[in-house]
Amino acid sequence: MTPVAELVDKTREFVREHVIPIEREVVVDGRVMDDALRLDLQKKAKDAGVFGPLSDPRYGGLGLDTRAQAQVLEAAGASLIGPLAVNAWAPDDGNIHLLAHVADPEQQERYLAPLASGEVRSAIAMTEPAPGAGSDPRMLCTVAEETDNGWVINGAKHFTTGAAGAAFVICVARTPDGPTMFLVDQDNPGLQVGRRMPTLDHTSAPGGHCEVNFVDCEVPDSAVLGTIGHGLELAAVRLAPSRLTFCMNWLGLAVRAQQLTLDHVVRRTAFGSPIAEHGLAQGLIADSEIDIAAARGLIATAAATIDAEGAVSAQARHETSIAKTFVSEAVWRVLDRAVQLHGGLGVCEDHLVARFLVEARAFRIYEGPSEVLRWSIARRALRGPR
Amino acid sequence: MTPVAELVDKTREFVREHVIPIEREVVVDGRVMDDALRLDLQKKAKDAGVFGPLSDPRYGGLGLDTRAQAQVLEAAGASLIGPLAVNAWAPDDGNIHLLAHVADPEQQERYLAPLASGEVRSAIAMTEPAPGAGSDPRMLCTVAEETDNGWVINGAKHFTTGAAGAAFVICVARTPDGPTMFLVDQDNPGLQVGRRMPTLDHTSAPGGHCEVNFVDCEVPDSAVLGTIGHGLELAAVRLAPSRLTFCMNWLGLAVRAQQLTLDHVVRRTAFGSPIAEHGLAQGLIADSEIDIAAARGLIATAAATIDAEGAVSAQARHETSIAKTFVSEAVWRVLDRAVQLHGGLGVCEDHLVARFLVEARAFRIYEGPSEVLRWSIARRALRGPR
Amino acid sequence: MTPVAELVDKTREFVREHVIPIEREVVVDGRVMDDALRLDLQKKAKDAGVFGPLSDPRYGGLGLDTRAQAQVLEAAGASLIGPLAVNAWAPDDGNIHLLAHVADPEQQERYLAPLASGEVRSAIAMTEPAPGAGSDPRMLCTVAEETDNGWVINGAKHFTTGAAGAAFVICVARTPDGPTMFLVDQDNPGLQVGRRMPTLDHTSAPGGHCEVNFVDCEVPDSAVLGTIGHGLELAAVRLAPSRLTFCMNWLGLAVRAQQLTLDHVVRRTAFGSPIAEHGLAQGLIADSEIDIAAARGLIATAAATIDAEGAVSAQARHETSIAKTFVSEAVWRVLDRAVQLHGGLGVCEDHLVARFLVEARAFRIYEGPSEVLRWSIARRALRGPR
Amino acid sequence: MTPVAELVDKTREFVREHVIPIEREVVVDGRVMDDALRLDLQKKAKDAGVFGPLSDPRYGGLGLDTRAQAQVLEAAGASLIGPLAVNAWAPDDGNIHLLAHVADPEQQERYLAPLASGEVRSAIAMTEPAPGAGSDPRMLCTVAEETDNGWVINGAKHFTTGAAGAAFVICVARTPDGPTMFLVDQDNPGLQVGRRMPTLDHTSAPGGHCEVNFVDCEVPDSAVLGTIGHGLELAAVRLAPSRLTFCMNWLGLAVRAQQLTLDHVVRRTAFGSPIAEHGLAQGLIADSEIDIAAARGLIATAAATIDAEGAVSAQARHETSIAKTFVSEAVWRVLDRAVQLHGGLGVCEDHLVARFLVEARAFRIYEGPSEVLRWSIARRALRGPR
Repeated sequence: MTPVAELVDKTREFVREHVIPIEREVVVDGRVMDDALRLDLQKKAKDAGVFGPLSDPRYGGLGLDTRAQAQVLEAAGASLIGPLAVNAWAPDDGNIHLLAHVADPEQQERYLAPLASGEVRSAIAMTEPAPGAGSDPRMLCTVAEETDNGWVINGAKHFTTGAAGAAFVICVARTPDGPTMFLVDQDNPGLQVGRRMPTLDHTSAPGGHCEVNFVDCEVPDSAVLGTIGHGLELAAVRLAPSRLTFCMNWLGLAVRAQQLTLDHVVRRTAFGSPIAEHGLAQGLIADSEIDIAAARGLIATAAATIDAEGAVSAQARHETSIAKTFVSEAVWRVLDRAVQLHGGLGVCEDHLVARFLVEARAFRIYEGPSEVLRWSIARRALRGPR
Repeated sequence: MTPVAELVDKTREFVREHVIPIEREVVVDGRVMDDALRLDLQKKAKDAGVFGPLSDPRYGGLGLDTRAQAQVLEAAGASLIGPLAVNAWAPDDGNIHLLAHVADPEQQERYLAPLASGEVRSAIAMTEPAPGAGSDPRMLCTVAEETDNGWVINGAKHFTTGAAGAAFVICVARTPDGPTMFLVDQDNPGLQVGRRMPTLDHTSAPGGHCEVNFVDCEVPDSAVLGTIGHGLELAAVRLAPSRLTFCMNWLGLAVRAQQLTLDHVVRRTAFGSPIAEHGLAQGLIADSEIDIAAARGLIATAAATIDAEGAVSAQARHETSIAKTFVSEAVWRVLDRAVQLHGGLGVCEDHLVARFLVEARAFRIYEGPSEVLRWSIARRALRGPR
Repeated sequence: MTPVAELVDKTREFVREHVIPIEREVVVDGRVMDDALRLDLQKKAKDAGVFGPLSDPRYGGLGLDTRAQAQVLEAAGASLIGPLAVNAWAPDDGNIHLLAHVADPEQQERYLAPLASGEVRSAIAMTEPAPGAGSDPRMLCTVAEETDNGWVINGAKHFTTGAAGAAFVICVARTPDGPTMFLVDQDNPGLQVGRRMPTLDHTSAPGGHCEVNFVDCEVPDSAVLGTIGHGLELAAVRLAPSRLTFCMNWLGLAVRAQQLTLDHVVRRTAFGSPIAEHGLAQGLIADSEIDIAAARGLIATAAATIDAEGAVSAQARHETSIAKTFVSEAVWRVLDRAVQLHGGLGVCEDHLVARFLVEARAFRIYEGPSEVLRWSIARRALRGPR
Repeated sequence: MTPVAELVDKTREFVREHVIPIEREVVVDGRVMDDALRLDLQKKAKDAGVFGPLSDPRYGGLGLDTRAQAQVLEAAGASLIGPLAVNAWAPDDGNIHLLAHVADPEQQERYLAPLASGEVRSAIAMTEPAPGAGSDPRMLCTVAEETDNGWVINGAKHFTTGAAGAAFVICVARTPDGPTMFLVDQDNPGLQVGRRMPTLDHTSAPGGHCEVNFVDCEVPDSAVLGTIGHGLELAAVRLAPSRLTFCMNWLGLAVRAQQLTLDHVVRRTAFGSPIAEHGLAQGLIADSEIDIAAARGLIATAAATIDAEGAVSAQARHETSIAKTFVSEAVWRVLDRAVQLHGGLGVCEDHLVARFLVEARAFRIYEGPSEVLRWSIARRALRGPR
């Protein structure tokens, strides 16, 4: 067995043994996914040798290329909280990648090291309430003004994933030279983390999706991430890997849901035979097999391109856009079929598939709604050589 | 304006003025939909002259034919709790129809009168945990044994909508002569209403979807509804109208979601213009218009057939099966597009469309999952004259 | 039986007895559909009392309202050449409607009378090669200039259905006051009917889809149809009924294909049972039943609106746009499933379903491609009251 | 550039320069694709160094593994007759593979050598008219009886691709020990090649899809391919590679159609801007990009599995079933969108996309209809370890 295949097996084993029992407590029984629970799971992942598929070995990570990440994260994604348990869940996944590529050495030590090793969590404050930046980053309203000592940030954000309890928040704000990213510490008095928004995906993310306000929030020059005015390029550095990580994780959950469904249909009987023998059920099962295989192929292709050409190459951006669009919709279809094939049980939150479906809905919107992605895919195709 | 058109207008006005404000409290703010609230809403509906679209005038209802019901209930359905407010929500809608057609005069006075007038609620205990009856009614496990004084019922049910607080439960149980329906009073010591199941649709039904046990539950002979051994025929009496009422109500919600979406997309701007001007958004909007129009056409067709040929005619059963299949899937698509066009807000339960989507999921399963209905539609087509 | 139901029955009988035998010769054996054949079929339709569902009784027609047309034309559409046999095929269907509404008495006598009675055929020359008018009528390039004696028209058209052999062609040309319609006689030396374009639908239309040139084509003032400069309004008069007639005819063909398919699947066995008993085949059959029922409902709704509010009312235009979009796509799906359920035979032109599919492809494009219609549907929805 | 990438480039160049000009003559202008033309094209392919992607170097082929074939055949597939030009078109593609794996040395010399080198064509006679073998090979009716000198075959076949003009036909016939494959020479008097069936795909295959009768057809023992009674296992040897070759070829055509479409939409204007800027057109373009990328990923995955585990491994059969199902449907969607985006021109056979669509329809049926494949995919999933 190759080292990656072994790691996949170990990750599967870890999820089965340590994560899935907890998942049921969290998803069905309402146990709160707080940092104590997260740290406990991550401790077990470290013990099992499966922690940090996105992290550098110097931070205790596995040092995998993107193709290997695809296989490992699909295994971790078998549980809704599996990716978190190995420290590959949003937004930390993307922030680890971002900081590894653009943070200066001091920032890496201060922010990346504890994040990549699972010591702390982080957030990125990008999306704003209307009329601010949503899908269109050029509508950014949050402003950073230069002062004698650094910068002062003012503006409102929302859907800031993981903000409650995050050790730091990466804030994207408008400066005279253009959008810029700032590292804002948790204890900065100008950082006001508001309510957790009541989103449909509410069980898996410690720190929720928060409303966040920056009120005369002062940060030093050393808080600037990368170059002033190049915040959108930095966002692009983060975007392709982040989209793909999402795909890997959710594909894992789709595979799990399909397994739960197969288990159900062979046991449950109706009209004289197991549901597994009903033609229309078989059609749904086959469609999910096809969706899963196609999703896996698109992820593998895009991962190979990132490894070969880099995450900001035009080809990587095109392929991750395609993958994100297809996979988010394919996962949704697989989970929806899983619910349908569970019959009444499928809409009862005693059963994981009901909750999986609801949790997954946002995936078609976060990190680029399907319609915005289709638009960008079409424009790239139209620009291509003919 | 025709009397029906006037009634539609009055119903719209009632929903806008009295129901929608309460809906927000229930759906977003977590106010419990209990019987006090239900009675208050129904009182207002009576005052507005819109109570009882499914009830006979002798019980304070509007005495409408099915075609008129279609128009009025689409208007009532504009709110998730609108149909309840006019006393046309499951399972009372189907039970009113059932009792009106098969109850004897004494049963009508005792059970139908208070139900049709909104005084009480009811339930029907049909679905059973595995290996009992789900989609396949022939798998019925609950048993009624004849005694000297009547019958004693034993068995487990679940997904018994509205059971908590219902004045009576119609129980379907197996007897030597076949499945039979029994009227069981709320205070019968053998009727044990268990926990409310944590279904995805949790805000709209007072009484929830409950686990129910019949434990040596004694009922007199007068509790038998219709003829002994003909319970499945009775269920068929109930089924076509019940499916169609569901369609009417949920179509109304789809129309409402489309309106909320149109309002959103004309206001929210991205990439330099309102979302309403983006071609891909327009495509989703048009698809929802088409789905709504097609759903309305199928409901109207089936309603006319029920009025002309009766609810148990083969044609009515075929057309309501077709309508239920298409409408439940079309409503799901419309609500899903509404979420998508709301972007991030669409998956936040501050916004009604997020909750509408989740509430609607069960509609594709309850009263016949789409796959079972497709199977029956195909078999009827294959039996047809050629 | 109502008179309309009787007429439907007679039309079905006529198609079965007189049209379907000829259809096979035309569609499978390559017999040319020329005017001799058309006149023979129409003679038989007159004898059977089913000629002219779109024509006024004064021209030998049946004088039906739009709702009755829907039922009769669905019956006629059971054969690919059935609508032609009763004189309800494009473009004569729309031209009859147009002339009946906007031609002056002299024009009605000269053009409408022989057309509505089946004596002659007609064409309408609207679509132009790039950069002329396609879906966008404002791109009209053909020009009519006023002379002392009338007008002289110059310009190129294509996809002019039925032009070869048409007694007259309605030409849409640009004048200083706007687009204008002109009646051009077959023997006008300036009317040059070119080649029949090799379109996918090649068996059903006598006269084909032709390239047509107007070369210094002189017409008198009496050739102007309606008011100068109002050609697009006239096109709109024609559009809604024409779209709906298409829907009626093609729905009939979809119903026929479904019948042929049901006949096939009950007879053909595979894997130990008739295909009719395979679950996945049943799913396709049910989907086609649903598509057919939904299409019929949309046609009925739009027809009722035309009868109540007129063909140029905003509501009629909206509903016929919706119907055209859905029905053209639903018919395509039904025919595609028919091919699929016939297996290998389905792609062999010995079998009608293969040819039906190919013939039907243009229906999603002619008289407004689905995408243009969706755009217009969305804009109307967005303009609506909220 | 890797050798494979170079070969892909050379294949693209060859198709552009030598094949596409001929394609237009064949597809649009009706030139017959006969063996003279085939041999001329294959001569040019040999000169260009791109002949034989499926053939062994000893027969003048390129000796590629399946992954390389995928890339090269996608390039060849850019023209409807490109795969034929490089000798990778059905049924020779599958027959080359079959003979290479199961023919004895003498058979290889006599049948495989001239086939793999393009000297001759072949056919495989499997499918039978009802009640014979279609999708279900166990329904085989053709019979081979043992004689003193060998075997005598009797039975009717149809859809025998390439039979007219084939140097030999592989006949599958029932023997007492089970289905068996026989090599039947063209000049065998018991081999009666009947009419070419009028299938929708009529331009690309020299030899058509024929009706074939075996009438007291005597063959020697040396005509038996592989082991007597193991004909279905041999068919399985052929099946996975054959399905995948189809996918590669047709994916190439989908890519070509997308290119033709992109070219069209940037040039054609409507409603004030190029169609390329219309949102709904962009949506279709993006959907085709996604379909193409997903198809390519599934082919690559299955090809890698064939290379690693062999074409008859369970995994290869599962993955090629999935690929065939998805790719055949994805190609159909891409071609259908290409037609739609061409507007009226798209249904005119002057334009290649119209013909491409019609030619492609059979791909969803040949070598396993989607429904039969879905059934097999589901059963394999249900058998899997859980």
